[in-house]
Amino acid sequence: MAGETTITVVGNLTDDPELRFTPSGAAVANFRIASTPRYLDRQSGEWRDGDPLFLACNIWRDPAEHVAETLKRGTRVIVTGRLRQRSYETREGEKRTVFELEVDEIGPSLRYATAKVMKMTRQTEPGRATAAAPRGGSLDDPWSVGAPAAQREPVTVGAAADEPPF
Amino acid sequence: MAGETTITVVGNLTDDPELRFTPSGAAVANFRIASTPRYLDRQSGEWRDGDPLFLACNIWRDPAEHVAETLKRGTRVIVTGRLRQRSYETREGEKRTVFELEVDEIGPSLRYATAKVMKMTRQTEPGRATAAAPRGGSLDDPWSVGAPAAQREPVTVGAAADEPPF
Amino acid sequence: MAGETTITVVGNLTDDPELRFTPSGAAVANFRIASTPRYLDRQSGEWRDGDPLFLACNIWRDPAEHVAETLKRGTRVIVTGRLRQRSYETREGEKRTVFELEVDEIGPSLRYATAKVMKMTRQTEPGRATAAAPRGGSLDDPWSVGAPAAQREPVTVGAAADEPPF
Amino acid sequence: MAGETTITVVGNLTDDPELRFTPSGAAVANFRIASTPRYLDRQSGEWRDGDPLFLACNIWRDPAEHVAETLKRGTRVIVTGRLRQRSYETREGEKRTVFELEVDEIGPSLRYATAKVMKMTRQTEPGRATAAAPRGGSLDDPWSVGAPAAQREPVTVGAAADEPPF
Repeated sequence: MAGETTITVVGNLTDDPELRFTPSGAAVANFRIASTPRYLDRQSGEWRDGDPLFLACNIWRDPAEHVAETLKRGTRVIVTGRLRQRSYETREGEKRTVFELEVDEIGPSLRYATAKVMKMTRQTEPGRATAAAPRGGSLDDPWSVGAPAAQREPVTVGAAADEPPF
Repeated sequence: MAGETTITVVGNLTDDPELRFTPSGAAVANFRIASTPRYLDRQSGEWRDGDPLFLACNIWRDPAEHVAETLKRGTRVIVTGRLRQRSYETREGEKRTVFELEVDEIGPSLRYATAKVMKMTRQTEPGRATAAAPRGGSLDDPWSVGAPAAQREPVTVGAAADEPPF
Repeated sequence: MAGETTITVVGNLTDDPELRFTPSGAAVANFRIASTPRYLDRQSGEWRDGDPLFLACNIWRDPAEHVAETLKRGTRVIVTGRLRQRSYETREGEKRTVFELEVDEIGPSLRYATAKVMKMTRQTEPGRATAAAPRGGSLDDPWSVGAPAAQREPVTVGAAADEPPF
Repeated sequence: MAGETTITVVGNLTDDPELRFTPSGAAVANFRIASTPRYLDRQSGEWRDGDPLFLACNIWRDPAEHVAETLKRGTRVIVTGRLRQRSYETREGEKRTVFELEVDEIGPSLRYATAKVMKMTRQTEPGRATAAAPRGGSLDDPWSVGAPAAQREPVTVGAAADEPPF
């Protein structure tokens, strides 16, 4: 993909990430972040919260599993990715549009926290080298991956896909 | 400051961060990151490394201490901040210009790693509320801060997560 | 405001901008842009359009009038601003959320076009110095501005260029 | 290229753009922009200029010609592109590093100006369809373009390439 709209957001997870697997065994994590700006109240001289921005996020494959193992409700994160829009119809036949962030890179913020980082070296089969694909690179079609992941048990997201994942 | 040039960089630390303190006790951490793009070699069909981008980074106060405790040489990070330029003269009287990134937010990337996040709650004196200043906010003049850094007590995220901070 | 989520979008106006004025005389222009990414179809070796991203945009005061005079349906633009979310209730009592871009800076793209730029110097009353407010600065409350928009006189860039503004 | 560092800068051209052509006829425009942040002086209550950020910019092919026809010294622009670093040796054998912005999209800002936009439809030979390549797309190696551009006279930049173009 070229010409996509990239965006960096700093915010807090509104819930624990939800981890699922495609029929072919590719992991996907879904979560939502709330980013709250602040403004200086000139009356009181104090910083106050502005309206939060809520954004649904998707991340795929190994990084999805890392997210599920690392982040939980409330964790402050930095996320960078591509802003996308998806349209769907409600059961009543109404057309709706949602914004989503296809995450390229995410990490826990060190503003109010420290972290113990553990590098993962996975037993990667030949067909799963995509984990090393570059940012914005060839992670495009995780649903088409052929070989099921080794020790994991694929769980269908077919049912979930009937309704928008948020 | 308004109208500053913000930038998000994903890369690896070229060395361990260097932590120092101003005479008034404010922490500052300096480090350098290397961001290496990749391109598809059409001959071989393989991804190859492009020329890396090296960028000097500064971060102040509590987050500086968190950086020094968390990151080391080689850690992959996501950084967002403001791109700045600084001019100086060499001993030979030559004028030089360097680019620096004033970091607003940084975290270890979860692309190839997991992390155990520990939320920090500090014994903050009234005058040091600046640690909670918003991104791009009033961290401007750390050299003028009066009090030395306080002692602090690590608190696990689990407890803090009971009340999502948004 | 601090800690807002900034974003840069390249796309085309879906319609002519709509210019309105607040009761106090401040201009606001509304428009929508469509940003269409492309992807390489490996079958055919050709670039194809991906799903477009539609984004509603607001811009205030003098720049709003410049937008209305310059841009029209189909014009390709570069826009940078702050991503915001606004919630409202439909007549049926349903809660809806929309994303909007508070524009900080916009211009027609020179990718497929040239342009003749005309610098505007306005007869600015003391109270309207906000036109020169910096990006992300004090344009927060345009509804409270007292004076109606003044008459202005187009001045060619040639004259202004004699003294570079930096 | 994937994983490049993208950046959006708002600033003013420090000089007229310089337009040249590769031996194969591809246009390239070089220019420099100065981006000046502002800060609120709490003593005086006035906005003052901060230190400017200077950035060398390159743009290729048709957009390069559009830039040369449209922009001049002092014009305020919005630029988005990829931040790059280039190393070279001085005649004295010293190693130097410069930052450059490979421009993906640029336009004159409408903050203080209006513009008359003229869409260009060029007589494009088959081999020059690259002008329509998407942002961040296949404009990578303009030096390798085979066919000379129609009516233009190629001018070598070979000499200029001996010394860094800024």
